[in-house]
Amino acid sequence: MRELVERLYPICRSITGDGVRETLAIIGEHLPLTVSEVPTGTQVLDWNVPQEWNIRDAWIKDGSGRKVVDFQELNLHVVGYSVPVRGTFTLEELRPRLHTLPGLVPYRTSYYNQTWGFCLTQETLDAMDEGPYEVLIDSTLRDGSLTYAEHVVQGELDDEVLISCHTCHPSLANDNLAGVAVAVELAKSLVSPRYTYRFIFAPGTIGAITWLARNRGRTERIKHGLTLACAGDPGPLTYKRSRRGDAPIDRAVAHVLRERPHTLLDFSPYGYDERQYCSPGFNLPVGGLTRTPYAGYPEYHTSGDNPGFVTEEAMADTLDTLKQVVEVLEGNRAYLNLSPYGEPQLGRRGLYASLGGRSDTKQAQMAMLWVLNLSDGEHTLLDIAERANLPFSAVAQAAVALHGASLLKEKT
Amino acid sequence: MRELVERLYPICRSITGDGVRETLAIIGEHLPLTVSEVPTGTQVLDWNVPQEWNIRDAWIKDGSGRKVVDFQELNLHVVGYSVPVRGTFTLEELRPRLHTLPGLVPYRTSYYNQTWGFCLTQETLDAMDEGPYEVLIDSTLRDGSLTYAEHVVQGELDDEVLISCHTCHPSLANDNLAGVAVAVELAKSLVSPRYTYRFIFAPGTIGAITWLARNRGRTERIKHGLTLACAGDPGPLTYKRSRRGDAPIDRAVAHVLRERPHTLLDFSPYGYDERQYCSPGFNLPVGGLTRTPYAGYPEYHTSGDNPGFVTEEAMADTLDTLKQVVEVLEGNRAYLNLSPYGEPQLGRRGLYASLGGRSDTKQAQMAMLWVLNLSDGEHTLLDIAERANLPFSAVAQAAVALHGASLLKEKT
Amino acid sequence: MRELVERLYPICRSITGDGVRETLAIIGEHLPLTVSEVPTGTQVLDWNVPQEWNIRDAWIKDGSGRKVVDFQELNLHVVGYSVPVRGTFTLEELRPRLHTLPGLVPYRTSYYNQTWGFCLTQETLDAMDEGPYEVLIDSTLRDGSLTYAEHVVQGELDDEVLISCHTCHPSLANDNLAGVAVAVELAKSLVSPRYTYRFIFAPGTIGAITWLARNRGRTERIKHGLTLACAGDPGPLTYKRSRRGDAPIDRAVAHVLRERPHTLLDFSPYGYDERQYCSPGFNLPVGGLTRTPYAGYPEYHTSGDNPGFVTEEAMADTLDTLKQVVEVLEGNRAYLNLSPYGEPQLGRRGLYASLGGRSDTKQAQMAMLWVLNLSDGEHTLLDIAERANLPFSAVAQAAVALHGASLLKEKT
Repeated sequence: MRELVERLYPICRSITGDGVRETLAIIGEHLPLTVSEVPTGTQVLDWNVPQEWNIRDAWIKDGSGRKVVDFQELNLHVVGYSVPVRGTFTLEELRPRLHTLPGLVPYRTSYYNQTWGFCLTQETLDAMDEGPYEVLIDSTLRDGSLTYAEHVVQGELDDEVLISCHTCHPSLANDNLAGVAVAVELAKSLVSPRYTYRFIFAPGTIGAITWLARNRGRTERIKHGLTLACAGDPGPLTYKRSRRGDAPIDRAVAHVLRERPHTLLDFSPYGYDERQYCSPGFNLPVGGLTRTPYAGYPEYHTSGDNPGFVTEEAMADTLDTLKQVVEVLEGNRAYLNLSPYGEPQLGRRGLYASLGGRSDTKQAQMAMLWVLNLSDGEHTLLDIAERANLPFSAVAQAAVALHGASLLKEKT
Repeated sequence: MRELVERLYPICRSITGDGVRETLAIIGEHLPLTVSEVPTGTQVLDWNVPQEWNIRDAWIKDGSGRKVVDFQELNLHVVGYSVPVRGTFTLEELRPRLHTLPGLVPYRTSYYNQTWGFCLTQETLDAMDEGPYEVLIDSTLRDGSLTYAEHVVQGELDDEVLISCHTCHPSLANDNLAGVAVAVELAKSLVSPRYTYRFIFAPGTIGAITWLARNRGRTERIKHGLTLACAGDPGPLTYKRSRRGDAPIDRAVAHVLRERPHTLLDFSPYGYDERQYCSPGFNLPVGGLTRTPYAGYPEYHTSGDNPGFVTEEAMADTLDTLKQVVEVLEGNRAYLNLSPYGEPQLGRRGLYASLGGRSDTKQAQMAMLWVLNLSDGEHTLLDIAERANLPFSAVAQAAVALHGASLLKEKT
Repeated sequence: MRELVERLYPICRSITGDGVRETLAIIGEHLPLTVSEVPTGTQVLDWNVPQEWNIRDAWIKDGSGRKVVDFQELNLHVVGYSVPVRGTFTLEELRPRLHTLPGLVPYRTSYYNQTWGFCLTQETLDAMDEGPYEVLIDSTLRDGSLTYAEHVVQGELDDEVLISCHTCHPSLANDNLAGVAVAVELAKSLVSPRYTYRFIFAPGTIGAITWLARNRGRTERIKHGLTLACAGDPGPLTYKRSRRGDAPIDRAVAHVLRERPHTLLDFSPYGYDERQYCSPGFNLPVGGLTRTPYAGYPEYHTSGDNPGFVTEEAMADTLDTLKQVVEVLEGNRAYLNLSPYGEPQLGRRGLYASLGGRSDTKQAQMAMLWVLNLSDGEHTLLDIAERANLPFSAVAQAAVALHGASLLKEKT
């Protein structure tokens, strides 16, 4: 996953433009993608697709011709969606357009107000004399299109699980190349699932809005969903519940996170694209999974969020968590105990014997008793795992064993 | 407010009599009042209006003719509703009729058992010799009437907010002259409200019962209510929930108190007149606001509860809290987001720009996102403020801004 | 109660056999019992009544003829349901059949797999040489019957309270002779109750299953129930809620336990016969009362659980708790306040006066106010006691006093 992060890192992405296309082409080497191009000006819900932005070069040269700030070194140096500029400016004139942080280059954009600017460290600014400076931003802002991609793993059911990653940030590793890399691996791991899994790689906000606008009548098929971002920093996992608060996805993720250091947050209408999926008209069961959340680490939206900030270990942990969530979603169903009066005699059916050689015998036995006791048509396996305080996998295995002994039937 | 407390303090009030009338006349200098007189013997719910009690003088004189206990010095010295007495008694004979506390004169009454007695400090009693003593209680207990008053601020709606203060305590400042003083200021602050506000100044228990008896068919218009007592001591505010426990008044007061030191108590059928308003036949949404509650301070029901015990600062804090509660009650309504699919583009409507100059920009922006997200017809602004953990005022301002941009309509 | 425990202790009980019959005969000296015999092979729910097991003697003799292990000394020495054996074995051959604990003889059974074995201390085993040993188990495993008994105290109602004790453990005192002894005393204490009380003395699991099978159509009359076990150890009381979790029995026991050190546990499908009563087909409101629960003490299921481990004091405490639970179940009903508008004037009816001489005046007065306030047809006396945080007895006495004053009528 780090390899993919490192390969995608240098590309200058924005909410539109060739950087996004190049990024999707690389993802497409790993997963078959359906790429959509939506023309500038298309109305999408309450918004319109903006003009497409592309940039080739940008710099600030001092009197000696030396590039004090150079887009080729780091694409964060240019404010995203900067209009083209070529001219000479004193430092005084430039100052309102220069954004700085001590020791770090901040990430700034101005999608919907036409302006331009540069980002640099405070130290670089402090070292600049009064100028004048030669300034170039070789960008274009023209009618074009917004680009997003989908990867679908068709399941047994048309009901869908949605995984959504934003792909609009330039050289920022945790936010959100790590999310993209984890999503790619998750997608590859899915084999003949029950649900259909839809992965969306789209620019933040306007991308999700565009996708929702074009799929407005079909959002009901989304039964569970997650936005995935900041998936690679070393902090513990954080899950932000969907607007519904107790959707199956909320309970599934909370259940899986029980056994890891983690934080659970209630929904709030700020953060990543769960804002759009959970807007009241859609109110989809989509939560947000991150490690350290939105704005919660000092490197957030700065040059400090580089590939050195994300670790393979953290991404693997995020991926493993997601696989367990998938296991819960896939395996969660309700059964009916066919022998509900008293406990059935498990020994006669070899269900005690079969446990003999296992080190987790006691847990397996408790799981069977719980599944029998609560399979009354009112409880899913996840309900049972929560109430029994047992891992979902133990409960699901117990259900398989009991089903095999004709003690359960699936509730339809 | 302290001025009013000090002016009312010397008057000898009881559940009936001229002290109450004099008190209401002074309140009437600040607010137009409708005064009701209800004759002795009138049946009011399960009770009957008692005889009217008035007192002119009372004392205990020792052998030298010196007044050891003197009603003119402090009206607490006489047990409330004492029948008239003139005679000579040994200390032995007096003892069962003398109520004492160390260093303090206690407050005692005997409304429904005909008896008499005196209250004094333990030190005064210890200094008394065996007597005999000359004793006078120049009181009358005769058919008359019970007096209470109402002040009504007519609002846009006939739905009412009830504020009820007991006015039956003689020289006790916090309990309840401070409550009266705060209520008067609250009433004066109301300008063209949406709700109609009804302030009741009535003797405790029998006064509330009398008012309820005479308004029995009209209590449904009371949508929110508070009893107000002990409003001036330096302790933190205490709110006792209505019997319903989650009435809008309960949630409104709890929300306002969030930002102050405070205590929340569940309803109990003891305390002030919320006991009557919350009796099961009425079950009105009336909670109780105090600072240190009923019997919670050593000065309670003693000569220590004098004007020196209440502070202007504490009364101002109580008043400010009540004004904020009124703001919540007045402003709490539900809206419908007219652009519920995805977030509407606030920037295009100047709703980001308009925030630029404000120091509370971030809170205002969050408030807008919350109002948009939860204005689905199921949530009032108070619901939203609670869930967002934002001040109600921020949420209400956001709603005004969004309504102005035609993004909300009021739910009817 | 200790006397009964000591008398029953030496008897070799199992899930069937003469030990159970002897035990029931002794209980029958205290309480009239209806004893049922259910033939081997009878289908009971998902199970069949097993063959009857009886044992006369068992030992392991060393080369010198000395009994190294002797059933006559302690019946735990033989694995329950051991098939008959007579032969000579080396220690090597015996080892897999010998169950040990350091310093204690463990309790083992093998009801549904035909096998045999011995239980002994680790120290005894360590002292044994390689043998050979002469081995005897003089047992019989033949068609016969399963024995259980019922004691019924007929009440005013046919609705029942079920108290169930397992009687299948050989020389184990706390588990469950203490439970039996406490149940006997509880039964004796019941005089003309409102509910009908049914005490079941039956072998664990198969006994409860047999009773349920034979009463399948009549379980609806069981309104409250408890399994009673481990009732005599010195630990604090533990209540395990019924599967319903908030059945009246759950709330009644929790209310009574408030004033003692105790633990409350949620239901789990493991433990005593609440497993069967709470199987989903029956889902009866049956909780489990113990002191230190199932497997929670080191003496559990060993020779350490002997009469020296249980105390009269602990059994008396369990009994007292049960009597209070009975008091709550018997006395819990709902009333209607006949004077629900405002508080009724209690003084006029002598309900203040009547309290004058009592040290618990304040509690009694609060109880009256609470009963009046909440007797709206929606709250039982237990609801009121819980909400008022008052002992049930105080609330029940208040209801009697108010009913006597015609302020309440029973809700039907």
